[in-house]
Amino acid sequence: MAQMNSVVGDLWGNAEKISNFILRAKEFQVDIINFPELIICGYPPEDLLLKPHFVRDNLKALNAVISSTKDITAVVGFVDKDKEGRIFNAAAIINNKELKGIYHKMELPNYGVFDEKRYFQRGEKFSLFKLENVSFGVNICEDIWKDKGAANLEAESGAKLLINLSASPYHVGKRRLREKLLVKRAKETGSFICYTNLVGGQDELVFDGGSLVIDPKGEIIASGKQFQEDFVIVDLDIDLILKSKLNFQRKAKIKSIIFLPRNIAKKPALAKRQFLKRLTPLEEIYGALVLGTRDYVNKNGFQKVVIGLSGGIDSSLTAVIAYDALGKDNIMSVSMPSRYSSEATQSDAKILSENLGIKLIVIPIDTIFKAYLMVLEKEFVGLKRDVTEENLQARIRGNILMALSNKFGWLVLTTGNKSEISCGYCTLYGDMAGGFNILKDVPKTLVYKLARFRNKKEGRELIPGSILTREPSAELRPGQKDKDTLPPYSVLDPILKSYIEKDKSYEEIITEGKLDPNLTKKVIQMIDRNEYKRRQSCPGIKITPKAFGKDRRMPITNRYREF
Amino acid sequence: MAQMNSVVGDLWGNAEKISNFILRAKEFQVDIINFPELIICGYPPEDLLLKPHFVRDNLKALNAVISSTKDITAVVGFVDKDKEGRIFNAAAIINNKELKGIYHKMELPNYGVFDEKRYFQRGEKFSLFKLENVSFGVNICEDIWKDKGAANLEAESGAKLLINLSASPYHVGKRRLREKLLVKRAKETGSFICYTNLVGGQDELVFDGGSLVIDPKGEIIASGKQFQEDFVIVDLDIDLILKSKLNFQRKAKIKSIIFLPRNIAKKPALAKRQFLKRLTPLEEIYGALVLGTRDYVNKNGFQKVVIGLSGGIDSSLTAVIAYDALGKDNIMSVSMPSRYSSEATQSDAKILSENLGIKLIVIPIDTIFKAYLMVLEKEFVGLKRDVTEENLQARIRGNILMALSNKFGWLVLTTGNKSEISCGYCTLYGDMAGGFNILKDVPKTLVYKLARFRNKKEGRELIPGSILTREPSAELRPGQKDKDTLPPYSVLDPILKSYIEKDKSYEEIITEGKLDPNLTKKVIQMIDRNEYKRRQSCPGIKITPKAFGKDRRMPITNRYREF
Repeated sequence: MAQMNSVVGDLWGNAEKISNFILRAKEFQVDIINFPELIICGYPPEDLLLKPHFVRDNLKALNAVISSTKDITAVVGFVDKDKEGRIFNAAAIINNKELKGIYHKMELPNYGVFDEKRYFQRGEKFSLFKLENVSFGVNICEDIWKDKGAANLEAESGAKLLINLSASPYHVGKRRLREKLLVKRAKETGSFICYTNLVGGQDELVFDGGSLVIDPKGEIIASGKQFQEDFVIVDLDIDLILKSKLNFQRKAKIKSIIFLPRNIAKKPALAKRQFLKRLTPLEEIYGALVLGTRDYVNKNGFQKVVIGLSGGIDSSLTAVIAYDALGKDNIMSVSMPSRYSSEATQSDAKILSENLGIKLIVIPIDTIFKAYLMVLEKEFVGLKRDVTEENLQARIRGNILMALSNKFGWLVLTTGNKSEISCGYCTLYGDMAGGFNILKDVPKTLVYKLARFRNKKEGRELIPGSILTREPSAELRPGQKDKDTLPPYSVLDPILKSYIEKDKSYEEIITEGKLDPNLTKKVIQMIDRNEYKRRQSCPGIKITPKAFGKDRRMPITNRYREF
Repeated sequence: MAQMNSVVGDLWGNAEKISNFILRAKEFQVDIINFPELIICGYPPEDLLLKPHFVRDNLKALNAVISSTKDITAVVGFVDKDKEGRIFNAAAIINNKELKGIYHKMELPNYGVFDEKRYFQRGEKFSLFKLENVSFGVNICEDIWKDKGAANLEAESGAKLLINLSASPYHVGKRRLREKLLVKRAKETGSFICYTNLVGGQDELVFDGGSLVIDPKGEIIASGKQFQEDFVIVDLDIDLILKSKLNFQRKAKIKSIIFLPRNIAKKPALAKRQFLKRLTPLEEIYGALVLGTRDYVNKNGFQKVVIGLSGGIDSSLTAVIAYDALGKDNIMSVSMPSRYSSEATQSDAKILSENLGIKLIVIPIDTIFKAYLMVLEKEFVGLKRDVTEENLQARIRGNILMALSNKFGWLVLTTGNKSEISCGYCTLYGDMAGGFNILKDVPKTLVYKLARFRNKKEGRELIPGSILTREPSAELRPGQKDKDTLPPYSVLDPILKSYIEKDKSYEEIITEGKLDPNLTKKVIQMIDRNEYKRRQSCPGIKITPKAFGKDRRMPITNRYREF
């Protein structure tokens, strides 16, 4: 299993990497090497698929890969095209420099972050492949999730090994779901399952790898690492396959059996099986955030990032994750105190930057703030200060970060968390200004857990303890606290989860959570009213079952009221 | 045909409006009244459909409508749900306070701006309805676009009248496409077609109405107005239906025939057929922009808008469209001159505001600009001025507009056009800061045409002639002109159309357009590199076959290079 990190659109770069994996596999005398779904073009290629020349170029890149398969069998994801110009999410079954067969994905996911029916035609048939006396079938991602789907049909036709090419994005708990499903599928089909998953970040998504080989009894016999590239070699116990006492009826009609020659000159090495300790949920989430950040920054051609450090928990955790993703020399931090900034937060920002060894630039904003107030004085005469002046400060900071970004080519990381973005407790063009938002899908209570987790791993207070214990404040007016506007995060976050991730109604939320109706109404109103802000937010990393972005497509113009 | 303007999510408001249309229809002794697709919940409801309680509430609203149908037949679009909780894009056929039948849309569009397969199950069957001796069939939008689809099946089963409920969004040329298709369908089926289209703006989309009744010979016998609500009553020539010499084989298997009682007490009035002059393309586009603006502003609960007037063509046309959409008292304009603003543009902004009779606030930005430069001096020491300082000015203006928005509750209209947004010739959080972008899908060459069209209609230079003739400039540095960065718009716009709307390759574009390869490469690079900016842009009105937004879903992280 070549658990590879591809780049969307980088057809030739991906093809070269695939060929290098194949070379490496040959050194290990591998019989069959498998790659993730659509590995040639990266996943998801989105509307690049609507460009006919993109599909043509992907076929050219596939041909380059085919020429590198002397004496080996490779299963490679690509975009296929038929004579009518219709396209398919496909797998090429290649043997000894020849394309022996093509499988078209049958189940096209079109929910959540997936839009496959926008692009692809559904596959209708499958072939069985035979390498010596071992029959195997090939299918793609969603195909194996469907009961009585392609995987089952292939097994019923005699496949003793099911090869699944996947691009399954991460969210909390996803790996457990996958394991459970694949173990069930292996048992019910009596086949080995070889599940090769993509790894890497692509805009909002992180593919976590964690590829799996499962035997016909449902035992996991090998697994790939999560959140990094991996190359997993496993010798399948052919005898177990052939002597399998499990008898399954051959129900499905086999379209064709394609025989693949095996290079008999070589002797199979007895590769060591790879067993990995499962990551804890916090390790997983942290790993997803680090990989998602690194890949967004680097795949988009940036080297350095800049972060506004307020001395609060969100910007602190953002800086630490960026540090883990990119290294200390690539993190620039900026402290931008105003008349409302406390000494404590400014000092904490400084300590954090020292702990990380990252550069801290200090740019006070009060001169600029005064200039705005003066210029607007005439229009605002006689009016009370309100959120306008708070937003101005946030926007001055956004402008300063963007000026540094423009001048030095640093990518601005925004620091908002899911709780505040849900409620619109953030300023458009202010703290929302930037290219990537690491914590966009991380609720505030989880921000704290991740900070503590990271400190614990470090064995010291990398993030100063005072940041973890201080009451959250935006410091945009005297004595301001988050709780003036929002319920406590321990109350807020479960409401957000019910309303956003689970699509529960107001009635269900107050009943199930035994919650105050007025507080709950206020939260739901805040979420609904701030769709326009989220529409203009930068991308961030999906870690929950439903993130903002293409995972949740709400109209801005929307008069639906639940109460 | 009740060509109604619904509001997404406003189930009870829509239901009330539907009932009022029914009341009105009864006054005119109408037999059958038809409404557009999903009229109960508005179109497109997007992820509201994933809320089970939203679907339940839509059924309750439908029931309220049913109770208002005494002595009349009504065909009403709604969301249906089966016992398994699967949902359908549906039409209710209601007669005399009873739900007589339900049709489920068979063809679910999942391309362009459409995501119907994300939500809906496909319908599998249809019924025929009989009012006295007239058989009719019901189908929904895309169903009638498909060759040999539901409309044809219904006609083959004996339907002499095909009722189609639509929510067909506007783009240039769409009306002609629709007419052509419906005329063809009427002729081939030998049936009357009654095509009731939605009207109104919803986020990026404008539904243009223009409902049609076409007779079996393919003659348009009535049509609804474009870009406004309309109520079209037409007496179909029953004899023509019954005596039709056109003989069509009855091929399709009829699932059921449902007989609907007609209120025989009433005498049909001979309603006058409504023939409308077709709008010219510029009239259509202008109408779409006005309606899209009015509905976005009002449906989102705003009354007043604020526009930064630079004295350039884009902000001028934006102001005039807003003026036409909302009235002069609801338009606030702001002139924000800098050291680089010319007297000519400032004077033009003033003249325009006087021509429109709108308030003009003047806020010079140089004090604030100096404050930024001073504060950033230390970081920027020894470095040349570049786009950083240009962006700062644009962002100061964005902040001022947002401050006015925050203080007074005015919606900020941004003024960018499709040409500059395509090339990223605009500043994130600067001139891109705001809630709605009227010209987002209008190429610069079309901006000029629309301005001239509007002046001509006014019979005078509502937009000062000097604005139309002055060479475009962002006025962010001394002597700056658009042409320093971009090719002439007459060259640029056709490239943008080929690359963005038609998905043509670099090779095709230079060959077909006989274009300079280097210039074309530069344009394509600008488009590709600026996806991140567009991702953070506010919504605007789709008027071309492919707009930015949900119509074009490109990855930000994308290394595909065509050359």
